[in-house]
Amino acid sequence: MGTETIDTLIHARWIVPVEPAGLVHDHAAIAIRQGRIVAVLPSAAADDAYSASEVIDRRDHLLVPGFVNCHTHAPMSLMRGMADDQPLADWLRKYIWPTEQKWMSPDFVRDGSQLAIAEMLLSGTTTFNDMYFFPDVVAKAAAQAGIRACIGIIAIDKSTAWADTGDEYIAKGLALHDEYKRDPIIKVVFAPHAPYSVSNDLLKRIRKLSDQLELPVHIHLHETSTEIRDSIEQYGQRPFARLEQVGLINNLLLAVHMTQLTEDEITTAADNSVNVVHCPESNLKLASGFCPVGKLINAGINVALGTDGAASNNDLSMVGEMRTAALLAKGVSGGSSRVDAWLALQMATLNGARALGLADDVGTLDAGKWADITCIDLARINTQPVFDPVSQLVYAASRDQVSDVWVGGRQLVANGKLTRLDGNQIMEKAAAWHSRIVDETAPSVSGTPS
Amino acid sequence: MGTETIDTLIHARWIVPVEPAGLVHDHAAIAIRQGRIVAVLPSAAADDAYSASEVIDRRDHLLVPGFVNCHTHAPMSLMRGMADDQPLADWLRKYIWPTEQKWMSPDFVRDGSQLAIAEMLLSGTTTFNDMYFFPDVVAKAAAQAGIRACIGIIAIDKSTAWADTGDEYIAKGLALHDEYKRDPIIKVVFAPHAPYSVSNDLLKRIRKLSDQLELPVHIHLHETSTEIRDSIEQYGQRPFARLEQVGLINNLLLAVHMTQLTEDEITTAADNSVNVVHCPESNLKLASGFCPVGKLINAGINVALGTDGAASNNDLSMVGEMRTAALLAKGVSGGSSRVDAWLALQMATLNGARALGLADDVGTLDAGKWADITCIDLARINTQPVFDPVSQLVYAASRDQVSDVWVGGRQLVANGKLTRLDGNQIMEKAAAWHSRIVDETAPSVSGTPS
Repeated sequence: MGTETIDTLIHARWIVPVEPAGLVHDHAAIAIRQGRIVAVLPSAAADDAYSASEVIDRRDHLLVPGFVNCHTHAPMSLMRGMADDQPLADWLRKYIWPTEQKWMSPDFVRDGSQLAIAEMLLSGTTTFNDMYFFPDVVAKAAAQAGIRACIGIIAIDKSTAWADTGDEYIAKGLALHDEYKRDPIIKVVFAPHAPYSVSNDLLKRIRKLSDQLELPVHIHLHETSTEIRDSIEQYGQRPFARLEQVGLINNLLLAVHMTQLTEDEITTAADNSVNVVHCPESNLKLASGFCPVGKLINAGINVALGTDGAASNNDLSMVGEMRTAALLAKGVSGGSSRVDAWLALQMATLNGARALGLADDVGTLDAGKWADITCIDLARINTQPVFDPVSQLVYAASRDQVSDVWVGGRQLVANGKLTRLDGNQIMEKAAAWHSRIVDETAPSVSGTPS
Repeated sequence: MGTETIDTLIHARWIVPVEPAGLVHDHAAIAIRQGRIVAVLPSAAADDAYSASEVIDRRDHLLVPGFVNCHTHAPMSLMRGMADDQPLADWLRKYIWPTEQKWMSPDFVRDGSQLAIAEMLLSGTTTFNDMYFFPDVVAKAAAQAGIRACIGIIAIDKSTAWADTGDEYIAKGLALHDEYKRDPIIKVVFAPHAPYSVSNDLLKRIRKLSDQLELPVHIHLHETSTEIRDSIEQYGQRPFARLEQVGLINNLLLAVHMTQLTEDEITTAADNSVNVVHCPESNLKLASGFCPVGKLINAGINVALGTDGAASNNDLSMVGEMRTAALLAKGVSGGSSRVDAWLALQMATLNGARALGLADDVGTLDAGKWADITCIDLARINTQPVFDPVSQLVYAASRDQVSDVWVGGRQLVANGKLTRLDGNQIMEKAAAWHSRIVDETAPSVSGTPS
């Protein structure tokens, strides 16, 4: 034992810091003090150097940066599996919107957020970027749980239980931004819903505020071919062109989905350092189209990953999303090398942190960053033998192999169990919402067939 | 407690027999005697009717037919993750084939099969359809483990450690067939490798034998566009046409992959009741192309599911494969209703049993069939709430939620643990093979970067 005092020392079989790409530390350790990484170094050297209040041994495990989920609608986890395999229009109009219309409330949002946060933590996610109504409630749930979150200032030209007008959406959102201005784990960003649901005036206002406050803008963009067709009909231009006109095609933009893109749009996105958030499972499930990930990466665009809401995925596991992203990009590009496992991991960590403007603080395992760390147990039948721990994580591991998770040095999952949240209580609340929704909503939302 | 004596009574929250489609028994039980299902009935009625030696309560769980994995190369699990993200030709020529050349032996095949069988059981698979060298060793490993298996009489015009000539492949295979003729869980079928690796003469011989013995013929077919191009160059026709010419396009055929198909081929396959085995994750990972599953189903073709070997997937979980199949078919067909969760489950169970000629014995939970049953725990954060248990299984569950597995009434997994196989010993052997392969194979097969 050494002399330099630290809070926590985590030993693991493998540590993959993500940057530099391709590096694996064998039999190494991460030293943590006051929530931040002090060093990543060989285990023997760590034992010599440090005196740690807490030493954790994970001898068959892989440590990677905590996953950054760049597109969620956390509270929608209460609608998981409510109406699968429907055409998109029916899914929204007959099921999701009527249910939201009837049930949307701070209680619904809190219970749904807690369900989502519990699932995200258990599957290794340490940061999520959310867009939903009652963002104040989502923010509070995240803060209480200790998970890092970017909370969207939702804006939509539609009256909802959260706000009535564009002005009210913005005003409430900015108040929330002020409330969390100095919070170490909550960051409030802009989240106009989509070009088809937000007017040019409101988009312009958001652009101005985003420039002033230097805040990311999180928006659904080019999700389906219908969106493009409707936009051309209504505005005489594609949604991407509309955003360009109002000045939103810039490095603060997180453009989610992007399944429909011309070569020119890809070039413009690259030239303006737009961030693309790829949601492969949601795009498949809703038959939205294929995001040309290989082309975007070749163009130099920062591509991050998101699960979307649990109602259209139907889980929030970034372990599965990395795998789907890596597999699907090969099928779509026709080349089995792009996206490789290592790039998928980078998309799920560093690229997400970059998109959210958090790369100085999280996204890699580097000295000085917050200790946002995910630990995966590879000593399972389905991940043996281990030729390459990152291949095993991306192509063979499942989310239950996430054994431990730290956010800012605080251990929120230990040996596969939540340390702060009460999983049973969360499940009971979800079951109660299920009963309420099935019993009292329109008959089209049926429960279990029997 | 009733008067009719049975061996086992399993109570569950939901039972989905798969046939009739769409049926869910709520709070129901399965009665088992001498390895076969006696009845599926409401729990209360079951308690009234039966006196069971063993009663198992799974009150938050879903029972479905055990999964039927229609395409595996079980021993290749020892090469899991050895050389990912390579172009297909490099993957085979630089990594897989040299490793097989050097290490292929009964020991390699036994240890690899046990690793694969352990993984398959833990993820709910009760039947697998295998194609590999030393099929006698795979058969023995399956018989000892108690898992149901169709073992392929591998045939290829290439000398290997298992056999030198077409005659020897067939002779050894037929001897194996005789050995297991009366076995309740092992069935020996034909498995010519692929049209490009098997001559017309050998294919004709297999066709004759398959007709005589009424045995399925398991073959890779139309996996890539290269295969088609090469065949046209060499034979002046597409591989499908060659098989048609030798009489193999019939109801005994399991055509694996089928990513390249003309409308005429689809019609001919449907008219001749060919079974297609869809391997979505392998097709994606090797960028082989997209199987037009929606079209095949619309044409009335029986489509089953396979994982392929762990070297090109990289796992053997049918839970994940169902999900990928359901998601990918929507993306490829452009419609979010096809394949739905219920059809994905049918493809993974009944359709597989049909393809293998086993539908009278397994594939649904029906009185008279073998009790091949998989039990899934839905009381997890990521599968709550439960609007539809089949949606949760296909779109949200992960393989670790498989709690129990029975094959022919014998419980091979109990509360997530293997009952007959020693998982730790199997993992140790896999690790030993990893060391051997990394230390002694060509330098191109590298271990962990460090």
